[in-house]
Amino acid sequence: MSAPIVLYDIPGNRPGYKCWSPNTWKVRFALNYKGLPLKSEWVEYPDIEAVYRKLGIETTDKNRHGNPLYTLPIIYDPSTQSAISDSMRIAKYLDETYPDTPRLFPAGTLALHETFQSAWYRVQPSLWAIVACSVCSWLNERSQIFYRTTREANTGKKLEEIRGEKEWKDAEEAFDKLNSWLSANGEGKDELVMGEGVCYADLQIVSGLMWAKTTLAEDDWKRICGWHNGKWERIVNYFSKYAVIDL
Amino acid sequence: MSAPIVLYDIPGNRPGYKCWSPNTWKVRFALNYKGLPLKSEWVEYPDIEAVYRKLGIETTDKNRHGNPLYTLPIIYDPSTQSAISDSMRIAKYLDETYPDTPRLFPAGTLALHETFQSAWYRVQPSLWAIVACSVCSWLNERSQIFYRTTREANTGKKLEEIRGEKEWKDAEEAFDKLNSWLSANGEGKDELVMGEGVCYADLQIVSGLMWAKTTLAEDDWKRICGWHNGKWERIVNYFSKYAVIDL
Repeated sequence: MSAPIVLYDIPGNRPGYKCWSPNTWKVRFALNYKGLPLKSEWVEYPDIEAVYRKLGIETTDKNRHGNPLYTLPIIYDPSTQSAISDSMRIAKYLDETYPDTPRLFPAGTLALHETFQSAWYRVQPSLWAIVACSVCSWLNERSQIFYRTTREANTGKKLEEIRGEKEWKDAEEAFDKLNSWLSANGEGKDELVMGEGVCYADLQIVSGLMWAKTTLAEDDWKRICGWHNGKWERIVNYFSKYAVIDL
Repeated sequence: MSAPIVLYDIPGNRPGYKCWSPNTWKVRFALNYKGLPLKSEWVEYPDIEAVYRKLGIETTDKNRHGNPLYTLPIIYDPSTQSAISDSMRIAKYLDETYPDTPRLFPAGTLALHETFQSAWYRVQPSLWAIVACSVCSWLNERSQIFYRTTREANTGKKLEEIRGEKEWKDAEEAFDKLNSWLSANGEGKDELVMGEGVCYADLQIVSGLMWAKTTLAEDDWKRICGWHNGKWERIVNYFSKYAVIDL
């Protein structure tokens, strides 16, 4: 077996839920689903930029002022001595580099996955409004300060003021949309995007759900579990076998 | 060979371009791609509701006031004595009813297609702003009055005032997005959504393009052909073999 792939991730401090970020969850699920061993490196928000410098890679993300935005996940694969950022780029790299592992992008679906991501990125912000304040509460102090400062500057609101009943309604409507896409597969096949067998789009959905499950107060998570006949909790349960963390 | 499937369509009067609607084009391409014979029935806008009544079907579309919206395409299939509206429902019906013809929804892609449609419906309105006034100019008189009245009431603008340089810029940006999805397939495979072989999402794209090609002034269509290294014209050319109309 090859040396473990290093996954750079942001630690949460809620007991049992050290991994919480939807972006790093995608890669964690991808590696576990493929059966590729991984080793987590935990990085606080203010230290992410230094990881890019250490590994000699650039970020392609920019904030709304056009400045570089340093985000995780990054992986470092000792077998190929490659460092890669961005969860979709990492997933494509894993499909290409480890062709004998289960594929995340079945043949012919790359553009459809790109489109799914674009559509998913219209769902995710409504979920962010639900989790933002809880996320911050479970970060270590330096990350907490970083998160609060940057997010409050972006939104012009205190984190505590972001979520109200309107945001809950918006999030449920966004999940209505997601549910209507999944339902096109027909009954009994409406929990995985491609009906049977996991693909990258499923990792986007379940990682968004893990963001909620790992950070929200129990009652708030139960509220989401009550939508669409329990579908979202069933999806989380289905993926629990791939949710292992190397704590 | 079974009796031709009747396709209800809205006639344009530009020489050589009787079919112009992006919605009916999808079904025309679908039938021609599958090699299923079709017979067009041409219906002016104010007469569409009567077709629904004659065939005994309901519309599921509503306008923004919640009133039923009667749209084409509809097909009537004499082999099964079924009448079906909505281009995606028709395409699914054709895949199910004629399983020996080339599939429009490859196995596992129904939810991804639903997502693609949702994403495409964020591109299409920007194209509507480009073509709306030209579309109207090529309709027969009764449809022209209907189209102008309903569309000007919806937008609060004269059709002649809808398109300006801002709308051209918006449309090009929307096509940038579409182009970025297709480009995920990699060079040489970036003109069909699934890289090789036609799927329903391709019919959405080419039908949107046919809407432009069949109604716009030559110079305006050439402007679109100039985007993204000629990709959109190449897609139209690729599908020209399926663009047959039974005039």
